[in-house]
Amino acid sequence: MSIKINKYDNLNGHDLCEIILENKHGVRISLLNYGATLEKFEIPTKHGHENILMSLKKPEDYSKERNFIGATVGRVAGRIKDARWENGNQTVHFIANNHQHTLHSGGKLGLDNQVWDFELKNRNDKVEVSFYFLDPDLANHFPGNVKIKVTYSLDNDNALKYEIEAVSDQLTLFNPTNHTYFRLDGPDSSIEDLNLELDADYYLPVDDQTLPAEAGMAKVKGTVFDFRKSRRIGDALKSDEHQVKVRNGFDHPFILNGNKIAATLTSNKNKRKLEISTNAQALVVFTANGFPKTDVLSHLHAHDGIALEAQAAPTNDPKLQMASLVPGEKFHRIVKWKISY
Amino acid sequence: MSIKINKYDNLNGHDLCEIILENKHGVRISLLNYGATLEKFEIPTKHGHENILMSLKKPEDYSKERNFIGATVGRVAGRIKDARWENGNQTVHFIANNHQHTLHSGGKLGLDNQVWDFELKNRNDKVEVSFYFLDPDLANHFPGNVKIKVTYSLDNDNALKYEIEAVSDQLTLFNPTNHTYFRLDGPDSSIEDLNLELDADYYLPVDDQTLPAEAGMAKVKGTVFDFRKSRRIGDALKSDEHQVKVRNGFDHPFILNGNKIAATLTSNKNKRKLEISTNAQALVVFTANGFPKTDVLSHLHAHDGIALEAQAAPTNDPKLQMASLVPGEKFHRIVKWKISY
Amino acid sequence: MSIKINKYDNLNGHDLCEIILENKHGVRISLLNYGATLEKFEIPTKHGHENILMSLKKPEDYSKERNFIGATVGRVAGRIKDARWENGNQTVHFIANNHQHTLHSGGKLGLDNQVWDFELKNRNDKVEVSFYFLDPDLANHFPGNVKIKVTYSLDNDNALKYEIEAVSDQLTLFNPTNHTYFRLDGPDSSIEDLNLELDADYYLPVDDQTLPAEAGMAKVKGTVFDFRKSRRIGDALKSDEHQVKVRNGFDHPFILNGNKIAATLTSNKNKRKLEISTNAQALVVFTANGFPKTDVLSHLHAHDGIALEAQAAPTNDPKLQMASLVPGEKFHRIVKWKISY
Amino acid sequence: MSIKINKYDNLNGHDLCEIILENKHGVRISLLNYGATLEKFEIPTKHGHENILMSLKKPEDYSKERNFIGATVGRVAGRIKDARWENGNQTVHFIANNHQHTLHSGGKLGLDNQVWDFELKNRNDKVEVSFYFLDPDLANHFPGNVKIKVTYSLDNDNALKYEIEAVSDQLTLFNPTNHTYFRLDGPDSSIEDLNLELDADYYLPVDDQTLPAEAGMAKVKGTVFDFRKSRRIGDALKSDEHQVKVRNGFDHPFILNGNKIAATLTSNKNKRKLEISTNAQALVVFTANGFPKTDVLSHLHAHDGIALEAQAAPTNDPKLQMASLVPGEKFHRIVKWKISY
Repeated sequence: MSIKINKYDNLNGHDLCEIILENKHGVRISLLNYGATLEKFEIPTKHGHENILMSLKKPEDYSKERNFIGATVGRVAGRIKDARWENGNQTVHFIANNHQHTLHSGGKLGLDNQVWDFELKNRNDKVEVSFYFLDPDLANHFPGNVKIKVTYSLDNDNALKYEIEAVSDQLTLFNPTNHTYFRLDGPDSSIEDLNLELDADYYLPVDDQTLPAEAGMAKVKGTVFDFRKSRRIGDALKSDEHQVKVRNGFDHPFILNGNKIAATLTSNKNKRKLEISTNAQALVVFTANGFPKTDVLSHLHAHDGIALEAQAAPTNDPKLQMASLVPGEKFHRIVKWKISY
Repeated sequence: MSIKINKYDNLNGHDLCEIILENKHGVRISLLNYGATLEKFEIPTKHGHENILMSLKKPEDYSKERNFIGATVGRVAGRIKDARWENGNQTVHFIANNHQHTLHSGGKLGLDNQVWDFELKNRNDKVEVSFYFLDPDLANHFPGNVKIKVTYSLDNDNALKYEIEAVSDQLTLFNPTNHTYFRLDGPDSSIEDLNLELDADYYLPVDDQTLPAEAGMAKVKGTVFDFRKSRRIGDALKSDEHQVKVRNGFDHPFILNGNKIAATLTSNKNKRKLEISTNAQALVVFTANGFPKTDVLSHLHAHDGIALEAQAAPTNDPKLQMASLVPGEKFHRIVKWKISY
Repeated sequence: MSIKINKYDNLNGHDLCEIILENKHGVRISLLNYGATLEKFEIPTKHGHENILMSLKKPEDYSKERNFIGATVGRVAGRIKDARWENGNQTVHFIANNHQHTLHSGGKLGLDNQVWDFELKNRNDKVEVSFYFLDPDLANHFPGNVKIKVTYSLDNDNALKYEIEAVSDQLTLFNPTNHTYFRLDGPDSSIEDLNLELDADYYLPVDDQTLPAEAGMAKVKGTVFDFRKSRRIGDALKSDEHQVKVRNGFDHPFILNGNKIAATLTSNKNKRKLEISTNAQALVVFTANGFPKTDVLSHLHAHDGIALEAQAAPTNDPKLQMASLVPGEKFHRIVKWKISY
Repeated sequence: MSIKINKYDNLNGHDLCEIILENKHGVRISLLNYGATLEKFEIPTKHGHENILMSLKKPEDYSKERNFIGATVGRVAGRIKDARWENGNQTVHFIANNHQHTLHSGGKLGLDNQVWDFELKNRNDKVEVSFYFLDPDLANHFPGNVKIKVTYSLDNDNALKYEIEAVSDQLTLFNPTNHTYFRLDGPDSSIEDLNLELDADYYLPVDDQTLPAEAGMAKVKGTVFDFRKSRRIGDALKSDEHQVKVRNGFDHPFILNGNKIAATLTSNKNKRKLEISTNAQALVVFTANGFPKTDVLSHLHAHDGIALEAQAAPTNDPKLQMASLVPGEKFHRIVKWKISY
């Protein structure tokens, strides 16, 4: 097992580093301290290492514009309806940046596009990077100083564990996620030929602004959202279902049933399987439904990757209680990605 | 073991769900995210599953009116005398809703009649639901934002574990309970033919307003409150004892002696035994002494169920110190209900 | 093993209880919720149980006047010089009740003379009582609401464990102790014929007001304070040493060397040995140098008992840093008394 | 194993003590409660004990002037650029005592030159001293009351473990270190003939004021800072590299790769090896590049010792996030020095 640092730039006095974890099987993880980002997940093949993520072309591209690819997103991932949080007699207003709503915490700066500090550990059974960030009181109008630690650890069972720990000195909202897109068949492949299995009997239908619809969660049974048995993603993407059609794919929260494996991606082309487990309530499934044509994204097309974002489900309830973090509470979210090949 | 979600309604934008845990013996637990409520506790019989709780007819009934049946009750279960808390030089006044006293925290909203978020876990040795609620600062005049987690977990020893964890960002009061009524012989049965054994040498006599009497705790020995040896509840209910007579049954706190089993209910008709253990100081025994004749309660009669509420005993002392929760303290109450049949 | 409650009184609406723990050897511990007090420590003898503490005649006597016997004393046990605490730019003034100093926290109410709530546990390997107290912000001028839990647990190795846990919501001072006097040869015996061994190379000489002398700690070697080898207490009490003479005995802090056994009391008359271990920095040794002639103390004489008070040593330093308790810190002091007979 | 206290002075009412830990092999550690200082690290030789640290001549010398030798340094070790911390909308100004910067927290008093309280533990597998300090709110302008515990523990594997634990009641900065200089060949030896191995691919070049240079971290490969393979320190010190030349040696942070052993010092003259492990992000390597000619330092010369200071690396970023400490966070830094001889 090894850890290597590759400094690739210095941005306004901050070192930008790629950190590379490798286990005894040659599984190789590349991480960026920019955004505590999972940049690449490479597995050994006959023809050398192959990256099974949808990634930008080079580390430098991640700070050129804001795309959230592979990043730690927060304080609150996804949408906060009407940019508003109501707690008892208090109302907090955030920055509306997606219609009248707040997307990915609003504002120009989030956990995803700032530089984190980091610390390395090479232990007998795993190699590990911890990233540290202090999000100050009133950042994007969120109350409280929040100290955040994100740890990526790779073991010799080919599992990459992602942990977010946080404490706040005031009541605040905290519901971050990791926004990695998987692309199991490697570069230039599409997710259409992958199979997805999801341990979810219910999903959240969304309205035209991708907020949970008023009627709340719905059964997947008998709908295109039914991935309880492994199904080809390409087939699902062709659905006539309005929600899928208008957005050219999925961008939906699924409520997890709680079994050990929350989701499985399998390749029909290669003998590859990715198993996802988490202690989060839900997975938001996003099928990368299209990209603006910017320089750094020029090589990417719709359905090049699939994001399975572990978090508390978004809600219409302005109380947002499941996203709350109280002083004295230890936030601890875990996601584990285990690859077989 | 399995967990299933059954969404039965959406109330003002909140999904109302019944969550069903089942273990390998077919013991089946139904929970509601409305009030973090224990709705049904079903055991397999020759004639199919039988519910050993006093329950409402259907999940929808729980939100029609406020009855506390099976619910998580708090912040403070039971009565706060004179609706007043004195801590040092500070006095906090609550809402008087029971004579001049505060019952079940006062106010129109409590932990029991609001919608909790939830999260499922299906593990090798247990199936588990965690419910989350953020009770805001000054809710029913109680200081402090309190983040509450209630977990129900069912194992293959036929034990259902109930845990309440909480942290507050200010000094406050917190003494919740679970308000489940057991009805061991199933639907249409009465508790009169059940036997009760209580590990309590002392109880709290109560006055006409069901507050602890001024003279404080008293020995059960030689009184109708003596359940140290298993006794038929029906016999006790027939007592001439004034406190029992005027309220048509029991509504009394018992101070636990601390043995592993706090209380045992046994059926004389069926070979059923329910053992209750807890880390709480006391059990409040309430024999469901009568119900208003409302639609949702129309099928219920006095003595259809018995509630054994694990909590710190109510008190006449306005300092209420055992119910206090200080920032930095981790509240953790445990109740375990183990059924044999 | 067993636990029994014996309610003996009700004081201004508070139940006063004696709680009796007994292990399988017949060792019997009596505790009072008044002051979280260790009332009696009884061992079985040929002639029945014998109490090896210096106790009052009956539980009721403990609340008649304030004597600290067996009680939990605090927030700060012992003397605070000039009734003053200086922390940075802040100075807190306490109540001077011993010359210009504060003894046992000053004021009319302390941890020792108020009623604690309690909770019992009878486990396989131990019997246990936990006492709870909330000391409010500004009690005796001490800042912060402090929630205190004192636990006594008796095991079958004849060890009684005493634990004090506390959290505060503001910076405050907290250095409590248990003020039990041992009297190993039982009622009517003196400590003069007992042997004391102390794992302490240093003690704190005290001035005429029993505050640590300016010159600070001194070696016990070559002085009457040398108990590194077991010595008869009566011999030490006869010393011509000024500090011992003027106060008719010892009232001195000893700095512990840190070995597992901090102190050992042995009887020359009976085959009895009491071993004391603690995680505290020091033991204050007080030889009960005289009692006022009040009704409840009428049966007691100088040198009837010896108190070995585990705590941080008193100091002349107005910063009192070792007695400080910061929000987020968990105070946890342990004392273990193991009897062999 | 043994612990001994040697009180050598009393300073303004505070006892100054040397505490001596010894293991079964005769390895002997001397500590001072002045500054929670590691004074001596002695190993047994044919000619008696030999001290492998650069120490002052006697304990009394440590309080005569401020040299940081062996001390616990903080709240923030090293330099804070422009004496300024920016967190969100808040800016805190510290005391500039090194050009316009803050060195070792600024001010006349730090963790290193005040008297700590202490507590001893002699356990089966280790001997241990814990030092306690309460650094008050606004000490050297740092916000928050910070309670600090420093523990030195010596085991029978000849490893000395150093731990710093801390909690704060406000957001503050905390990045302390231990400032021990090793001198592996004993008194009168130089470090020039020692070999150093550092598990660091990157270091931080520093500017003329010994602040990290603007360009940030750089590869050690091909530079005099490459200690990835064990190298003679004397050879490195002769380098023509500007940074080394102008300061007559090293005073540079190295970013640790995370392997178990962070640094190894070996003697070419004696069969001695010191292995350093830590959970800190970086080691600051300081080769004792010269001493003022004061009385207490008169016996010391440049390159008599080498300090390997475990801490978060200093930074140019005024946010200083890795040095932040939030209420509710438990600071816990560990350094382990293992000697073979």
